[in-house]
Amino acid sequence: MNTILYTGSLLSIFLASHFTIQAQDPLPSWNDGPAKQAILKFVETTTTQGSPDFVPPEDRIATFDNDGTLWVEQPLYTQLTFALDRVKALAPEHPEWKEEQPYKAIIDGDLKELIAGGKHALAAIIATTHAGMTSSDFEKITTDWITTAKHPRFHQLYTDCVYVPQLELLTYLREKGFKTFIVSGGGIEFMRPWTQRVYGIAPPQVVGSSIVTEFQMKDGMPVLMRLPKLNFVDDKAGKPVGIGQHIGQRPILAFGNSSGDKEMLQYATGGDGARLGLLVYHNDPEREYAYGPAGGLPDSKIGTFPQDLMDEAKQNGWIVVGMKNDWKRIFSFDE
Amino acid sequence: MNTILYTGSLLSIFLASHFTIQAQDPLPSWNDGPAKQAILKFVETTTTQGSPDFVPPEDRIATFDNDGTLWVEQPLYTQLTFALDRVKALAPEHPEWKEEQPYKAIIDGDLKELIAGGKHALAAIIATTHAGMTSSDFEKITTDWITTAKHPRFHQLYTDCVYVPQLELLTYLREKGFKTFIVSGGGIEFMRPWTQRVYGIAPPQVVGSSIVTEFQMKDGMPVLMRLPKLNFVDDKAGKPVGIGQHIGQRPILAFGNSSGDKEMLQYATGGDGARLGLLVYHNDPEREYAYGPAGGLPDSKIGTFPQDLMDEAKQNGWIVVGMKNDWKRIFSFDE
Repeated sequence: MNTILYTGSLLSIFLASHFTIQAQDPLPSWNDGPAKQAILKFVETTTTQGSPDFVPPEDRIATFDNDGTLWVEQPLYTQLTFALDRVKALAPEHPEWKEEQPYKAIIDGDLKELIAGGKHALAAIIATTHAGMTSSDFEKITTDWITTAKHPRFHQLYTDCVYVPQLELLTYLREKGFKTFIVSGGGIEFMRPWTQRVYGIAPPQVVGSSIVTEFQMKDGMPVLMRLPKLNFVDDKAGKPVGIGQHIGQRPILAFGNSSGDKEMLQYATGGDGARLGLLVYHNDPEREYAYGPAGGLPDSKIGTFPQDLMDEAKQNGWIVVGMKNDWKRIFSFDE
Repeated sequence: MNTILYTGSLLSIFLASHFTIQAQDPLPSWNDGPAKQAILKFVETTTTQGSPDFVPPEDRIATFDNDGTLWVEQPLYTQLTFALDRVKALAPEHPEWKEEQPYKAIIDGDLKELIAGGKHALAAIIATTHAGMTSSDFEKITTDWITTAKHPRFHQLYTDCVYVPQLELLTYLREKGFKTFIVSGGGIEFMRPWTQRVYGIAPPQVVGSSIVTEFQMKDGMPVLMRLPKLNFVDDKAGKPVGIGQHIGQRPILAFGNSSGDKEMLQYATGGDGARLGLLVYHNDPEREYAYGPAGGLPDSKIGTFPQDLMDEAKQNGWIVVGMKNDWKRIFSFDE
């Protein structure tokens, strides 16, 4: 009898602490508005046994764009900044680049010309400057750069220029049994060396653009050699394709921030049952940046959020998360 | 005091049951020979804190071939049998197939001619017969077939023709913090609908060959359409490439059974620290099949294990797991 009482008491302590944890706000850096409420409601309805929208854990797939969704993408995609450094380092071996775009623009520091080339030109630069080495050597180069290079405005490591509300959301989703994936136009091998540490997302759960790799024996050691040839562009209609290839399941939640994410959100929210599409809207020039051109914000070739995306969001019930109004805090280094 | 005593007693019960579990043989269907000992030793040395070969959980990646490694591949690859059924069903719409290989061979039931075409011809058939539908429709077709079709010799569902010793090994590895992946020459979308149920391996952890898919809006619904065009052959030197793409980490354990797995084993065992390469050797005609041609066994175009693979195994210290001698039990339906 004593034993039963004691067990009961242990159980109460356990349950009490359990419910205390549950009662804590899982998204403290989100303001209490419609976006936060929509997220909480969606997670509640898909993870509560007996709910008509209940989704079994194995189907709780959430995909996140990276640039502009999880970390800063202005004034330039971080990987592009990395690529610029690589081009400058490799330029002496490529005198022809002085006359050849987009290399000329990089060497001349003409960012406007460079950005005008669009994402495909960027992908080409990345393929060119990221190839001719093993995957393992590329990982070392990336790691060296990402642990030292700093953002020009915030003067912090790029991996510290990540959005705290999104880190909270990733953690919250995983605690609720979701598998979280990155689905980015960025290079898959550029992200993998640090996504576990920064986002808690392991390399196999990173989907991105890639160049062709080839299995080779180099000095008697088996390696993957990176060739200067584009393999896959994980952007726009490529995002659902990348999701099909790497995940093989239709996400029930997708979070993006630009026209490059439209098809991913269409695909995720186009299935049966409860679905949630979200878009970060960068409308906070004080704490971060403001660009659209939706809502009359300045146009941007990087992470463009045009009016038709805003219209599509309204039509499909996607949640537009305004940085200025929905996020209490943006960076960990903010006051 | 009572409380402390009671807590101590609870703890003893917990520890006792814990150690009972630990003491149980994790691989009861493996005979106690060098292969089983090598596996147990490898897992012990890589997962024990303080061991010089300790590997942190995030780097415990194990890759398994599927056909002939996890399930039966004779007398034909299971997916090929599935493809034959599809070709026969689609043949009335393709009169030209009566004169065109490899379709003619299928329609005529000439398996020898078909097998002579090799894996690339098979991949072509698969691409042709598996395309022109959405990924979701293909999943339904696959699921219908795999839950009803039976193996011609064992008269059991193909998903029951899986090797019990390997199921034990997959479970054991996962209990020890490994992530288990399939890396197969088979079609990625053919495997994903059932690998979670049969092997405990979720769709994102399946790597395989694929055809091109395209994002489309079909009747207003966003779908992935399967096109009749080969995307990737995940075989031989393609296996390390597929691992690089999907996993982004070098495995520390790889298990195959044929010359198609050689490069995967080279890649996995070519890294630093403790590594384990394993090959199933089908030398048990009574309980399963016997084919080589290594060791003088009959040659086979399906899952060929040539003498040079045996030599390479010896040279690299890969463990050759003889079905006849190393496996106490093969199928769950065995006595």
